[in-house]
Amino acid sequence: MSFALSGLWPPVSTAFRADGALDTERTVAHSKRLLADGAHGLAILGTTSEANSLTLDERRRVIDAHIEAGVEGKRLLPGTGASALDDAVALTRRAGEVGAAGVLLLPPFYYKKVSDEGIFRFVAQLIERVGAKVPKLMLYHIPPVAVVGWSLPLVQRLREAFPEVIMGMKDSSGDFEVTKNFIEGLPGLSIFPGAEVNLLRLLKLGAAGCISATANVNARAIRQLLDTWQKPEAEQTQEQLREVRAAVEKYVMIPALKVILAERYRDAGWKGVRAPLMPVPEAQQKELLAEPAVKKLLEPVAA
Amino acid sequence: MSFALSGLWPPVSTAFRADGALDTERTVAHSKRLLADGAHGLAILGTTSEANSLTLDERRRVIDAHIEAGVEGKRLLPGTGASALDDAVALTRRAGEVGAAGVLLLPPFYYKKVSDEGIFRFVAQLIERVGAKVPKLMLYHIPPVAVVGWSLPLVQRLREAFPEVIMGMKDSSGDFEVTKNFIEGLPGLSIFPGAEVNLLRLLKLGAAGCISATANVNARAIRQLLDTWQKPEAEQTQEQLREVRAAVEKYVMIPALKVILAERYRDAGWKGVRAPLMPVPEAQQKELLAEPAVKKLLEPVAA
Repeated sequence: MSFALSGLWPPVSTAFRADGALDTERTVAHSKRLLADGAHGLAILGTTSEANSLTLDERRRVIDAHIEAGVEGKRLLPGTGASALDDAVALTRRAGEVGAAGVLLLPPFYYKKVSDEGIFRFVAQLIERVGAKVPKLMLYHIPPVAVVGWSLPLVQRLREAFPEVIMGMKDSSGDFEVTKNFIEGLPGLSIFPGAEVNLLRLLKLGAAGCISATANVNARAIRQLLDTWQKPEAEQTQEQLREVRAAVEKYVMIPALKVILAERYRDAGWKGVRAPLMPVPEAQQKELLAEPAVKKLLEPVAA
Repeated sequence: MSFALSGLWPPVSTAFRADGALDTERTVAHSKRLLADGAHGLAILGTTSEANSLTLDERRRVIDAHIEAGVEGKRLLPGTGASALDDAVALTRRAGEVGAAGVLLLPPFYYKKVSDEGIFRFVAQLIERVGAKVPKLMLYHIPPVAVVGWSLPLVQRLREAFPEVIMGMKDSSGDFEVTKNFIEGLPGLSIFPGAEVNLLRLLKLGAAGCISATANVNARAIRQLLDTWQKPEAEQTQEQLREVRAAVEKYVMIPALKVILAERYRDAGWKGVRAPLMPVPEAQQKELLAEPAVKKLLEPVAA
């Protein structure tokens, strides 16, 4: 099957300076490493990227810094969702201007128990206000964090109303059956599981790719599974992905990934996160780096 | 008992123009009417105000518009919480500059299952960054919407660390026992129930006042209860408050209040809400306005 968007799009971790300021240089350097490791593109400004701890202006700067550093717009899939429509419009428009492959759109997530009709209007108004350069939308479903989510009937309705704009979904429900339902209920759309735990099974069902937090540290292997999922060795690759995920998941995911990045890049500054997230405590950092699956990740790769 | 902040502070509904643009003029006019109706001050930019559907700049404009229209800073209690620390800092600083009575601070609400330590650091950094003019903080507890909340031990710790800054809490848990625990566990702090349903009981326990959505349409009666809660007629006033609340709660609260405001001000434009909220359907508007408790609200008041 051919998809409008496919492959590996890591949700890029965002680097901060010691004083908490956004560090676009180190962030972009990490992005380039991910592309070198086999990522098809970069899902910058997602949940893993701590995008919701960035101001609107900082989020714009993350997009711009990638372009200025020579990353092609078509390699970018920025998160542009916000509770306030006009914030989402501003960021989505910027993504369109730089020629992004698409944007990852959270539903407006402050008000709860809102109707599908209300979310539909939010998206319809977004598309209208962004105007001619509206990029393709990947709807970002992450109920464990955003609580508000996208129902299948809502996505089907959006697709019918905006067939040129709705490109697909990232499903971070963490629920195999939910992802399966999206794949089966939205034929032709690009459905990206938000984790690699069941990636092989979901690729067989018709998933288009993967946008997973652990791709920040395990991009090569996830890419390998995406390239070889129809081959016999795929089961073994899937098993390695699961082991890495299980090791990292013993800790709080976002700061834990940064501990591994700090080790990989020999740059302790990578450990910084913004409140309300907390760095991994010193003792746990050692445990994490001593996890067999993590140690293997950090072994030098033959060139 | 004497509190740093007490009385009736309605969470002011925000008016929009037909095209969805913020209408500060009509919003401020409503604020002035609430003060005339007996409000001690104005909890602008809360959940009922749809503050999280406003951009940061719009929220700043709501504060400034009140000042420019002659409302004293000490009559304002703006909501200044945000997922991104620097957004909360910017708005809290503005509130401090205009001499606000305090600010209502949501915890950072995007990331879930965060630690009390992480939220503590968020607040500590906020206070430090806002600097000398930091206004008093009212911690805003509204788990049904924000999901992330303030635990009693966290508030106690914040109070110990920042005794000059932590003024109190608004508790919109909607759970009598939770409010009671906050009152009992935080003696001397200004605890405001986020609804008037159990206001009389909570005033007897030591609540300092009330910040309730329905104060947008029922300010006089809530004020009356606050003034007379130690008198025999208080039970009857409490019953009226309950009836109004029960009538409005049959509908979606935020748009339902605007239907009543539209009727009161003879200004259909008041009905507008921002997506993802939806206006009350036409048929339901009629039902709402026909509710006996609501009809009584709309009767002309003897001057």
